[in-house]
Amino acid sequence: MALDLHDYVASIPDYPEKGVIFRDISPLMGDGEAYKQATNEIVNYARGRGVQMIVGPEARGFIVGCPVAYELGIGFAPARKKGKLPRETVKATYDLEYGTSSLYLHKDAVKPGQKVLVTDDLLATGGTISATIDLVEKLGGIVVGTAFFIELKDLHGRDKIKDYDMLSLMQY
Amino acid sequence: MALDLHDYVASIPDYPEKGVIFRDISPLMGDGEAYKQATNEIVNYARGRGVQMIVGPEARGFIVGCPVAYELGIGFAPARKKGKLPRETVKATYDLEYGTSSLYLHKDAVKPGQKVLVTDDLLATGGTISATIDLVEKLGGIVVGTAFFIELKDLHGRDKIKDYDMLSLMQY
Repeated sequence: MALDLHDYVASIPDYPEKGVIFRDISPLMGDGEAYKQATNEIVNYARGRGVQMIVGPEARGFIVGCPVAYELGIGFAPARKKGKLPRETVKATYDLEYGTSSLYLHKDAVKPGQKVLVTDDLLATGGTISATIDLVEKLGGIVVGTAFFIELKDLHGRDKIKDYDMLSLMQY
Repeated sequence: MALDLHDYVASIPDYPEKGVIFRDISPLMGDGEAYKQATNEIVNYARGRGVQMIVGPEARGFIVGCPVAYELGIGFAPARKKGKLPRETVKATYDLEYGTSSLYLHKDAVKPGQKVLVTDDLLATGGTISATIDLVEKLGGIVVGTAFFIELKDLHGRDKIKDYDMLSLMQY
């Protein structure tokens, strides 16, 4: 009997600012059965799309992507903020509400032609995930799918990645 | 035939400063077979110690701990820097070379009496892992083990956590 994963999301009103409801996945990953079920749904999706490598942005993208990589017996590469990766990198910049931010990926993280799944916990405006996709494509990787525990529909992140296949386990 | 995991560590001389050799685990987690082997060694260790919950500090502690939690069908809780956890937390402070830093854990992340494994990619001076152990113990959890991909022996982190059982897959 499958769990309703919504029961494992904590909704925090007015966080980080008034009028925003923050969706916190920590109860989900804190529960072994819920975390396993959520991960297995992404494993099945990835298997169906022939995924050969997983890339996720720090830090919650690791929580989603790492067990999927483990179960499939494939690699995981972290997309990280400035100063976190010690070897040669590619860089992608994305817009924040005020200003911009950048993500980096090791140049040898993805091989040309490799089929890549990009993972994060939550799809909001899509800025982080678009930057992660950019990094993969700069290295010649093929993004065959994107996977999230949660999609915030009002923020229309899906429109920003409409050229890519997408799985979200829960929508708010 | 087991892989020699040392072959999947990139050693970067003079990073982040002159005279230091940085040990980078990204080739290990980027290789499906190596990542699976390393994870399975920690899974076996955790199983032997009756681990019920895994806690790891951001961000590379997630890469080590999350697939172990998944394989064992138990939960994972992230220990995070300031401002990253939206609900009520406990806090632990540790010394850096210059100044201090703090880690936080959600108050409901660990139940009193729960047997916890603490994971990180690398044991250096032991500051981060000691703070993570403190957080678990503040919530009444029992740290039954600590696990790392790499131990830097010259930095004597092992002395700092000598009251706890420890597994390191590689020593430098």
